[in-house]
Amino acid sequence: MMNISRREALAGALAIASTQGSPARAAAPQSGKQAPGYYRYRVGDTEMTVVNDGVSRMPIGDDFVRNVPKAQVNAMLESLFMEKDIYAGPYNPVVVNTGKNLVLMDTGTGEAGFKSSEGINGRLMLNLAAAGVDPAAIDAVILSHYHGDHINGLIGAGNSLAFPNAEILVPEAEHRFWMDDGEMSRASTPRIDATFKNARRVMTPEVLKRVRPYQSGKEVIPGVTAVATPGHTPGHCSHIVSSGAKSVYVQADVTHAPFLFARNPGWHFMLDVDPVAAEATRREVYDMLCAERMLVQGFHYPFPAVGHVEKSGGGYREILVQWSPTP
Amino acid sequence: MMNISRREALAGALAIASTQGSPARAAAPQSGKQAPGYYRYRVGDTEMTVVNDGVSRMPIGDDFVRNVPKAQVNAMLESLFMEKDIYAGPYNPVVVNTGKNLVLMDTGTGEAGFKSSEGINGRLMLNLAAAGVDPAAIDAVILSHYHGDHINGLIGAGNSLAFPNAEILVPEAEHRFWMDDGEMSRASTPRIDATFKNARRVMTPEVLKRVRPYQSGKEVIPGVTAVATPGHTPGHCSHIVSSGAKSVYVQADVTHAPFLFARNPGWHFMLDVDPVAAEATRREVYDMLCAERMLVQGFHYPFPAVGHVEKSGGGYREILVQWSPTP
Repeated sequence: MMNISRREALAGALAIASTQGSPARAAAPQSGKQAPGYYRYRVGDTEMTVVNDGVSRMPIGDDFVRNVPKAQVNAMLESLFMEKDIYAGPYNPVVVNTGKNLVLMDTGTGEAGFKSSEGINGRLMLNLAAAGVDPAAIDAVILSHYHGDHINGLIGAGNSLAFPNAEILVPEAEHRFWMDDGEMSRASTPRIDATFKNARRVMTPEVLKRVRPYQSGKEVIPGVTAVATPGHTPGHCSHIVSSGAKSVYVQADVTHAPFLFARNPGWHFMLDVDPVAAEATRREVYDMLCAERMLVQGFHYPFPAVGHVEKSGGGYREILVQWSPTP
Repeated sequence: MMNISRREALAGALAIASTQGSPARAAAPQSGKQAPGYYRYRVGDTEMTVVNDGVSRMPIGDDFVRNVPKAQVNAMLESLFMEKDIYAGPYNPVVVNTGKNLVLMDTGTGEAGFKSSEGINGRLMLNLAAAGVDPAAIDAVILSHYHGDHINGLIGAGNSLAFPNAEILVPEAEHRFWMDDGEMSRASTPRIDATFKNARRVMTPEVLKRVRPYQSGKEVIPGVTAVATPGHTPGHCSHIVSSGAKSVYVQADVTHAPFLFARNPGWHFMLDVDPVAAEATRREVYDMLCAERMLVQGFHYPFPAVGHVEKSGGGYREILVQWSPTP
């Protein structure tokens, strides 16, 4: 009675020429378009809108994970049913509407520059529009750190301000480090040197006029508290968004894509400026997230990039929330 | 230097009254609206559009899983960071555009009837419109089985045909069973009796005029092959959508929500008409999906409801695809 083998079913299919004539009317055209990439959920009285900026398609080089051979990365990708040799890294800025402030947390890769030939990123503005968020209504942009995929979206065409009415709230230690010419002169790798130069490109005089440094361990705006999570970069900050008894830990790059770097917290990602400190931070944050059963929003998590984590093997495994038809 | 304890961070937050004055302009209103619930991907030359019909909020009774105490179900929900005592079961019909045919696979819970007081389902038409799919352009509706959440969407207000130009392709054994008055007279439970009666409510004379039974093991339309997967209901069918070398196994209700019933293939869901046969089918299909590393689309998977499965513990664990900004 049962016939559930794929091969048998396909053989059956091949034996049948066609069971139905052509439809009487023209076939409906295929759409080719994805749904808009935003997702809303609530944290107490605060409304969160995850706004996808796209997904990279970055070729995986030999130093993608510094302390692990590329073959091991590919084996992991295969176990995840993902394409090998490619890092499909998602980018997910978040809009936080506290009812008093409208805040963007990190800005994505920007519409100009940074787009790789294969990547499908730079989509923040497109998805903000789909979500009904006016860039001019944003009060504040909170940056976690100064890598290009987090800051490049501050400026648009002709170096215009992408969020013209926003204060730009930056981790004090991060700003000091990347804007220091002495530190730049001591850049230990071409990649880090390029990050210094990119920060100078993005931090135009118009942007710098709006920059206000913030301290970790304090509220950045009411309801959003900064937490120092150094290692990925020297002044890297995460944030806790709270309302009433509810909160979410917005982790920025404590891990890059969790399916690689939370599962394997000992992997040293090529973009970690201090990989040993980054690993220590990662383990401490993830142990806390597990112990507190705390909701986590991850910039490089697969969209909608919000969920929980559990201990799994020698690392941690993300459990994304079930998509909900209402926020 | 580091301060990543949640409690410390929150204590720090409380010590600061407010770091910023009110914005000069009125606060932006919260949206309260979710993104539209559709998702596109390709299988060879065929375009798949998953169209979410919502998510149930079904109170979990003592017989929710017949052979497992409710406390064990709740323990599983807690491990998944989900609300206890509630079955948040997603509904995900799929539109298949082969380039020649535009096909809807299962119809969701319908806009009338079936809506629970707490449920947020009956959203198929809303999400079809968002996806740009005209119900009148659908050539064929393929049904997997006759439970209300799969067939009720066939009819709209005043028993009108929801898909007025579609043939309604039904599993021959399923149609014969549920439309047989003798079988109805032998219904072993009130729930099964209600399924017989609901089938008669939905299968109006106008619907029955358009019904064409299909056989398992054969193509239903070119590119879509039916596979008998009995147990959940007597004539329950799954389908393999193929194009070139690519295919996806559209499993219907081989498992209900995989986070409960694929992880625990031995759990006998209250809606399985023959739970022993359903379990045998489930294990056979999931062993095949694992062995073949085959893409699977699940009606009750969390939206977008497409991914792979791996063996995990005594069962199987779903790995949803990473959301992609392009189909």
